[in-house]
Amino acid sequence: MTERIKRADVLFFDGTLFRDDEMIANGTGAKTGRRMGHMPIDGQDGQLRAIGAQRYHRLHPFHALLHGGKCTKGQVQAWALNRYYYQAMIPVKDASLIARCDDPALRREWRRRLVDHDGESEGDGGIARWLKLTDGVGLDRDYVVSLAGLLPATRFAVEAYVHFVRDKTMLEAVASSLTELFSPQIISERLEGMLKGYDFVSADTLAYFAKRPPLAQRDSDFALEYVKRHAKTPDAQQAVLKALEFKCDVLWAMLDALYHAYVAPKHIPPGAFVPEDGRRSG
Amino acid sequence: MTERIKRADVLFFDGTLFRDDEMIANGTGAKTGRRMGHMPIDGQDGQLRAIGAQRYHRLHPFHALLHGGKCTKGQVQAWALNRYYYQAMIPVKDASLIARCDDPALRREWRRRLVDHDGESEGDGGIARWLKLTDGVGLDRDYVVSLAGLLPATRFAVEAYVHFVRDKTMLEAVASSLTELFSPQIISERLEGMLKGYDFVSADTLAYFAKRPPLAQRDSDFALEYVKRHAKTPDAQQAVLKALEFKCDVLWAMLDALYHAYVAPKHIPPGAFVPEDGRRSG
Repeated sequence: MTERIKRADVLFFDGTLFRDDEMIANGTGAKTGRRMGHMPIDGQDGQLRAIGAQRYHRLHPFHALLHGGKCTKGQVQAWALNRYYYQAMIPVKDASLIARCDDPALRREWRRRLVDHDGESEGDGGIARWLKLTDGVGLDRDYVVSLAGLLPATRFAVEAYVHFVRDKTMLEAVASSLTELFSPQIISERLEGMLKGYDFVSADTLAYFAKRPPLAQRDSDFALEYVKRHAKTPDAQQAVLKALEFKCDVLWAMLDALYHAYVAPKHIPPGAFVPEDGRRSG
Repeated sequence: MTERIKRADVLFFDGTLFRDDEMIANGTGAKTGRRMGHMPIDGQDGQLRAIGAQRYHRLHPFHALLHGGKCTKGQVQAWALNRYYYQAMIPVKDASLIARCDDPALRREWRRRLVDHDGESEGDGGIARWLKLTDGVGLDRDYVVSLAGLLPATRFAVEAYVHFVRDKTMLEAVASSLTELFSPQIISERLEGMLKGYDFVSADTLAYFAKRPPLAQRDSDFALEYVKRHAKTPDAQQAVLKALEFKCDVLWAMLDALYHAYVAPKHIPPGAFVPEDGRRSG
């Protein structure tokens, strides 16, 4: 069925189970969902995984270059600089979710994400570790933090994510975080590939990535459990899938903009970062 | 001074006049602003014009192709399809401004923009004329209106514009419309270039553009007058310039995304429109 979906332009769905064996497990029936022609949402081959397999930015050509050691230092700088804005806005995104939530348990759980990114004190947390990366690749920290060289398309994509979490249903807001289901693999590829591929990065520079996988695992386990509990109708389940697609689009659009400006055709928009090794002569 | 600004990475400003001869005209002094080292905001060579001359999307490489008759039909389709979303959201943007405005005179004035775009009845107005363009270049109207093939980056850029108008100060919201100061020129280049360059477009297909220049002129005259009246402090004037830069970034980012997906390197993001003449074999 996944194959048929890949070939289709339009897809009509009439509701499904969360797990293929759900009706058996809860005693409401003897059939698996797939036997009734349903695609399960969760599970190794479920629709969430299918979206990840087709649209997660691990597949983006920029990542093939970055992880394959094929980027110039200037391209790595442009990536680190632009991705900084994403990292810097994650706590704003997460606080937007907490701010609209009337469930103390969910607020407490989601608060861990603020701690992960903002840390307990100056110099601690994910954003500070990301700045070790931008330092490590030779960017001026004040310049990075000023956002002066950011690609406008990065800004628009990241802000679209923040607005999505602020304005959509709580279910969609939680579901949009589910790209973390796929992040452990890309992070290990990145760590290994970048350490091997670039003499200007060290394990210390990449400390951000070493810390992330267990946190991403914990967060995505929680978000997946939440989505399972709350997405009971076919409409709600469709909204979950659309939210994940949206988030994949955000990550993909950031890399499209990076590729266009710094790889090919190398059209850097007015005002954006110009790498030393990317300056045109004359 | 414009030359010096072009070469500078950072620019410090300490306030200025709106027009170079403002102090002479209102009797507060005998010097022109420029004699005191100030750049005027308005006027042919003012800072608003300088931003237009450097960042308005007339300069974008995609427009050189489009207006020069160098696009494939599929590229023209992709442009019309993506720009449709911008057109469709303009009344939402304008209503967002009206919705936060406590001045009936400004609301009345701005309401004209709703009439221009939404028309008086079905089939009338700018959006309907834009759909004549998408029809004319051979796109299915339901597909266009569904937004199914939109580039995510187009969506993010357009929504950034709507959010800007909704969330920033009223002065910034009005100022972000000032790209219309520069639109008559690009529209006449487009009309002439596209009629000459493509056998699949007719004057009727391009009716949208024939109607726009006097409306754009009226709207930008009003917005410029408003900005002059309300941007009295250096901070407010800087905010006006930043708002215009932001809007230029929105338009530029839309064309960057189009170029990247459909011209070079032709990386169409997952789910976006694939032109007939752009389909890869196999």
